[in-house]
Amino acid sequence: MGVKERREREKSETRDKILDAARELFVTEGYDGVSMRRVAEKIEYSPTAIYVHFADKQELFHELCQQDYARLAEVFQSSNMPTDPIERLKQIGSTYIDFGMRFPNHYKFMFMTPHPAHGFDDLDRETHGNPEVDAYAFLKWAVQQAIDAGCFREDIRDAELVSQTLWASVHGVISLDIAKCTDPWVNWRPLKQRAEMMLDVTLRGLVRAPLLAKDARNGAPESSEGEK
Amino acid sequence: MGVKERREREKSETRDKILDAARELFVTEGYDGVSMRRVAEKIEYSPTAIYVHFADKQELFHELCQQDYARLAEVFQSSNMPTDPIERLKQIGSTYIDFGMRFPNHYKFMFMTPHPAHGFDDLDRETHGNPEVDAYAFLKWAVQQAIDAGCFREDIRDAELVSQTLWASVHGVISLDIAKCTDPWVNWRPLKQRAEMMLDVTLRGLVRAPLLAKDARNGAPESSEGEK
Repeated sequence: MGVKERREREKSETRDKILDAARELFVTEGYDGVSMRRVAEKIEYSPTAIYVHFADKQELFHELCQQDYARLAEVFQSSNMPTDPIERLKQIGSTYIDFGMRFPNHYKFMFMTPHPAHGFDDLDRETHGNPEVDAYAFLKWAVQQAIDAGCFREDIRDAELVSQTLWASVHGVISLDIAKCTDPWVNWRPLKQRAEMMLDVTLRGLVRAPLLAKDARNGAPESSEGEK
Repeated sequence: MGVKERREREKSETRDKILDAARELFVTEGYDGVSMRRVAEKIEYSPTAIYVHFADKQELFHELCQQDYARLAEVFQSSNMPTDPIERLKQIGSTYIDFGMRFPNHYKFMFMTPHPAHGFDDLDRETHGNPEVDAYAFLKWAVQQAIDAGCFREDIRDAELVSQTLWASVHGVISLDIAKCTDPWVNWRPLKQRAEMMLDVTLRGLVRAPLLAKDARNGAPESSEGEK
């Protein structure tokens, strides 16, 4: 490896180290509670060394958002999604829960920590609404496919509302697990079981009656006849 | 008002002030990040003044848990619950969402902030499992009623798993709202709409087919024939 390559690799490793430290701090202290100095202290760097990589806290925060949300979108893209619209929604849900379980710190940063309202404009123009790089847009696209294929009940037409409901259902499973799974108050069932019941129940609650009737006849969890 | 009464009232007001400050700090800094000194600073008291009311951080934390969880259980008890098992579950869900919306700081403390695993023993003995004072036990009791009344599908027999699913569904709606409602990335539907769809969808996904078929015939949201 040449000197240039080694320097590039070291630079990228340092960036990752800064980003990991910042993610943890944003989660525990909130956006306002974090300073560049605190991030530097956490990884035992001088503040000056950090400014080589990021101009300010806002830029650092942006980079973190961009990387983490892109990672989730990538997970969806690289997952082998079924063509059946209901099975696809089920897989989106279980892939999402799996992401939260594998990367709890990322998950806490992305979905359990309020972000400052300002400064999302750059991100918007590049990725917002593009299903390939925006995980929410991908979910909404998949919901719209299910609506167009006639999978849902007649009165279910709002892809935005359905997406937000499905998102909240899987978010509920993971975020409750992250915050409360060590709580001895509740006799917790295994996460896998809770995730499966949630996906089964919400999708059953959405699909139209003939699909359900067929389901009941066959006694099988298959709940859709595929895309039109 | 006599001197004694006034003193008692002042003492109780001070306790509430300490508890409110501690709740906010536990939410933003986590259990380990909070000291009695920090709580005192927040309300501009001397640390000594705080120790008059609470022996240590653990006692303060306990009192906060006891008060906040008791408040939720009280809300359930004071709400006029329907006798129909499915309608009752729906009302438990909407009462819970309403609680989270009215008391977001309480909600964040109770369900979005990890608690230390130790020291729940006192709480256990007094209230754990008693539906009148333990909100989770109340939910589980209501789920068991629905199972016993034959409202759910044949394969749904585990009241614990169903309770955890219903809890996660409403937790998903509120906690996502608390953490992400100012996020311009998503075209949020009104919270009321999201809450209604979640309760409708999860309960439909649980109930047995004849109830659903009846529902489809009538085109009405009524989804149960009441308690046996």
